[in-house]
Amino acid sequence: MALSANDVDEQLAQIGEKSPLLLRPGFLIRRLHQIHCALFLKETEGFNITPVQYSVLTALVDKGEQDQMTLAAEIGLERTSVADVLRRLEERQLVERRRSEQDRRMRLARVTPRGRQRIKRMAPAVQRAHERTIEALPEADRQMFVWYMSRLVQTNNELGTVPFKLG
Amino acid sequence: MALSANDVDEQLAQIGEKSPLLLRPGFLIRRLHQIHCALFLKETEGFNITPVQYSVLTALVDKGEQDQMTLAAEIGLERTSVADVLRRLEERQLVERRRSEQDRRMRLARVTPRGRQRIKRMAPAVQRAHERTIEALPEADRQMFVWYMSRLVQTNNELGTVPFKLG
Repeated sequence: MALSANDVDEQLAQIGEKSPLLLRPGFLIRRLHQIHCALFLKETEGFNITPVQYSVLTALVDKGEQDQMTLAAEIGLERTSVADVLRRLEERQLVERRRSEQDRRMRLARVTPRGRQRIKRMAPAVQRAHERTIEALPEADRQMFVWYMSRLVQTNNELGTVPFKLG
Repeated sequence: MALSANDVDEQLAQIGEKSPLLLRPGFLIRRLHQIHCALFLKETEGFNITPVQYSVLTALVDKGEQDQMTLAAEIGLERTSVADVLRRLEERQLVERRRSEQDRRMRLARVTPRGRQRIKRMAPAVQRAHERTIEALPEADRQMFVWYMSRLVQTNNELGTVPFKLG
């Protein structure tokens, strides 16, 4: 680590003088989320896919055809949001939906060849968006930051709107 | 720091085996945002105030009467969102709005005594929500994590939906 605990305390005191909001985890997370979405939209401009649509499509690419409930758990979204996202992706022929033959109440979704191709072409741009989101940290600290977030997300998993399916 | 760079790399490799999403900064940030909102709602239950409503109210408490544009910049939200939030807070008599006498196009908002009291009573619960959001990190690492986020938010400030007014 480049910074000692003392340096960090001192710098945080200075930051807090600019705005106390800059010390509140909740505020910082909301801002980071906005910033990442902006970077995502900037990097993937022209593909016309939002971050959440991208998560849905990649889950379908990775896991094959899935029902909406399982898919919602897979990416930690509410079922109604997933249904909305899928409907929009279906209109654009990136996804196909059908009723399950075993259980008519279940709706299955799968990615179309067109959807698959879109995801493949977007991948490098998405990767850049993720990288740029943490690029302002010293290189040696980026992994540490990802590890911190990952630990918080895993420990508090049951608190997300929908628990994310871990492992 | 408790962990060496090697430990972090090794642990991240294990985490990535559970799900590659757990290594993507954008995904982690979205989940953390959901988690913080859940903690906020849990801790402040009964006050019936969302995180964004809380930000608007605290900004009005700190800065006094403000026009909607300035307020939007203050907390980094779009002007239309701020207008919606203020309308709802006004219906509940937590905020009052009026047109500026100098410039009739400008709408000014200020917190009512009732709004001020609500914020004051909520403060300990909000503080707990912020603390719980990062509690799963080793105590020595929490400040570091806040510093990382704060650095990213400041460096990328112009990328948020609305740049946040820094200092």
